[in-house]
Amino acid sequence: MKLLYPTSLKLDVSSLEGFSVSLHPYDVKQPIPDDLIDADILVTWTNSPTNLQDAAARMKNLRWIQSLAAGPNDVLSAGFDTENRVALTTGSGLHDHTVAEHALGLLLNAARRFYEMRDYQLQGKWPGHLGGPQPDRPSDRFTTLRDARVLIWGFGNIAKSLTPHLRGLGATVRGVARSPGIRDGVEVVAEEKLPELLPQTDALVMILPGSESTRHALHAERLALLPNHAWVVNVGRGTSVDEDALVEALEKGEIGGAALDVFETEPLPEDSKLWKAPNVIVSPHAAGGRPQDAEALIAYNLRRFLAGQPLKNHHRTESSSRL
Amino acid sequence: MKLLYPTSLKLDVSSLEGFSVSLHPYDVKQPIPDDLIDADILVTWTNSPTNLQDAAARMKNLRWIQSLAAGPNDVLSAGFDTENRVALTTGSGLHDHTVAEHALGLLLNAARRFYEMRDYQLQGKWPGHLGGPQPDRPSDRFTTLRDARVLIWGFGNIAKSLTPHLRGLGATVRGVARSPGIRDGVEVVAEEKLPELLPQTDALVMILPGSESTRHALHAERLALLPNHAWVVNVGRGTSVDEDALVEALEKGEIGGAALDVFETEPLPEDSKLWKAPNVIVSPHAAGGRPQDAEALIAYNLRRFLAGQPLKNHHRTESSSRL
Ligand SMILES: NC(=O)c1ccc[n+]([C@@H]2O[C@H](COP(=O)([O-])OP(=O)(O)OC[C@H]3O[C@@H](n4cnc5c(N)ncnc54)[C@H](OP(=O)(O)O)[C@@H]3O)[C@@H](O)[C@H]2O)c1
Ligand SMILES: NC(=O)c1ccc[n+]([C@@H]2O[C@H](COP(=O)([O-])OP(=O)(O)OC[C@H]3O[C@@H](n4cnc5c(N)ncnc54)[C@H](OP(=O)(O)O)[C@@H]3O)[C@@H](O)[C@H]2O)c1
Repeated sequence: MKLLYPTSLKLDVSSLEGFSVSLHPYDVKQPIPDDLIDADILVTWTNSPTNLQDAAARMKNLRWIQSLAAGPNDVLSAGFDTENRVALTTGSGLHDHTVAEHALGLLLNAARRFYEMRDYQLQGKWPGHLGGPQPDRPSDRFTTLRDARVLIWGFGNIAKSLTPHLRGLGATVRGVARSPGIRDGVEVVAEEKLPELLPQTDALVMILPGSESTRHALHAERLALLPNHAWVVNVGRGTSVDEDALVEALEKGEIGGAALDVFETEPLPEDSKLWKAPNVIVSPHAAGGRPQDAEALIAYNLRRFLAGQPLKNHHRTESSSRL
Repeated sequence: MKLLYPTSLKLDVSSLEGFSVSLHPYDVKQPIPDDLIDADILVTWTNSPTNLQDAAARMKNLRWIQSLAAGPNDVLSAGFDTENRVALTTGSGLHDHTVAEHALGLLLNAARRFYEMRDYQLQGKWPGHLGGPQPDRPSDRFTTLRDARVLIWGFGNIAKSLTPHLRGLGATVRGVARSPGIRDGVEVVAEEKLPELLPQTDALVMILPGSESTRHALHAERLALLPNHAWVVNVGRGTSVDEDALVEALEKGEIGGAALDVFETEPLPEDSKLWKAPNVIVSPHAAGGRPQDAEALIAYNLRRFLAGQPLKNHHRTESSSRL
């Protein structure tokens, strides 16, 4: 049995030794070499679309793909038979620290208006209005996480990692997911409750996967329910936000601002209105991008795969998960 | 007995009632009115220099000044007899949350390079090199707080408030103060140890008060001991950093960058080289500026003052504290 691992990141493959599989490095930007095309297991990280399409067409023995991305949209759109023959597991969990830290940074950038300070600095001007004595926690602005009401939409691994930092700084955290309940001590509600929660939100953090069901989850009517000072942060997938509606809300001052790490199209097209809309922070999909402790997840799932046990982070397509 | 309280911030004076003193509001930008000039107690917040100089000259009965600033440099330079007749207490503790949050934001701004992203955004350009796949925790750059070695110089109230956030994000924290020891579970060393610690520092956070003994604490020789990738963050007082030496270290690439909320002269003069030096983040003394729970400190000290007990946050001048 062959396992192919990517050379696009540093992996300590010694921690994958000892299983009844042979380990083979491969180049994620080239077609899989002929002598490896019969592999059973493929670990992916930043593979090129042509590499994946070619693998989908030619790897007849493939039974399991372990993506190191939390959102394996690249694998899903390459044509693998992930509904039946090929199990797909995601790298959810490997990006918790990095994405949570970035999301926290974006929230503080918004609250402390570092982006606006930068604009003044570039002109050699002191932004006096952003410093000196100032009102403490005004209710009509987002100036601090202390006592801020943060709503996290998509309450999975990253959200659970982000929450303690927000609470440590004094924020009140609530979550939205497919099913309601208390998770890690946080009240998580289903989407039906959004009309009630959005008006009570100072910062909305989107950490949704990219899928049909999350497409334009944040649309014009929901944006309209946010207070005028509320910020939107998106570190999930760009498709979950209707960018035209977002630009309109920003330009009309109907929300406080938007700090975005992901976009409907990446790189963000030159003609996007987001570049210059007021109070937008553009971050170039920089939150994650560096899986941590990937070896442990691969080894964990490899043992389960060999034992015929259910895999961790098994991705179910929306049609199959509806069954 | 009269207590004068400033109208320059919202104070819930009802929580100061019940003591054997009369409470009088006053305008911090005007001379103290004649009918209040015999007051015993003065609470200060953003007073104008002329207000303070006038008060120092004319308030013959004054025995106690409660500043709401953590660093009461304004009162100290106004000419009050704080060595003998007038007790000065600081607002240290009222700014812990706000300054710690700002310092954390500056550290994340530096690590995640939000300032550089902003420069690209203003040009409508996608900073691809700052996003996408990237190395995890490279040892020669400051990219995350996870496993970062943070040294906090000036380990008082603000540092104690900042530390749990840094540790929560995975940083290792050490402190520097006048006396060594373990404080809040953090190893705090005296200045003699700097030559040993500075080379092991990814981010140096300065939270020193402004005084003769802290003047240019961070000078050229000490800057030279920092690794080339290390960042300097200053949220204490600008005088604690030799800005000429800092600019030189930045321009020569001898340190990674500097995120500064305080400056030797504020507003930062137009001709300062800091505006355009590489990897500088200019924040306009915006970290604090909004005392929190000031009433509790005033009431606490007021009772002690009336009872003739030692006051909390008693400021000792450097000459007297050396006695
Ligand atoms: N910006 C970056 O660099 C970066 C890096 C890593 C990941 N990401 C993105 O972040 C996403 C989340 O990562 P994660 O590891 O936290 O994933 P996760 O643990 O799978 O959590 C996903 C969460 O989204 C919820 N969800 C899914 N579909 C939904 C829908 N239609 N409506 C409401 N909630 C829905 C899930 O709800 P249930 O719990 O109820 O099922 C779950 O709470 C990834 O899919 C990826 O796209 C971005
Ligand atoms: N940027 C802003 O908006 C803002 C807002 C609030 C405050 N601040 C500044 O932050 C400063 C610190 O505030 P804080 O409330 O944390 O004060 P604090 O509790 O009094 O702590 C000051 C710390 O500095 C140390 N220190 C004093 N002189 C020193 C010296 N010569 N060498 C080494 N260490 C020395 C003290 O050491 P020991 O503990 O050993 O005595 C103490 O650990 C204030 O003085 C103020 O200037 C700035």
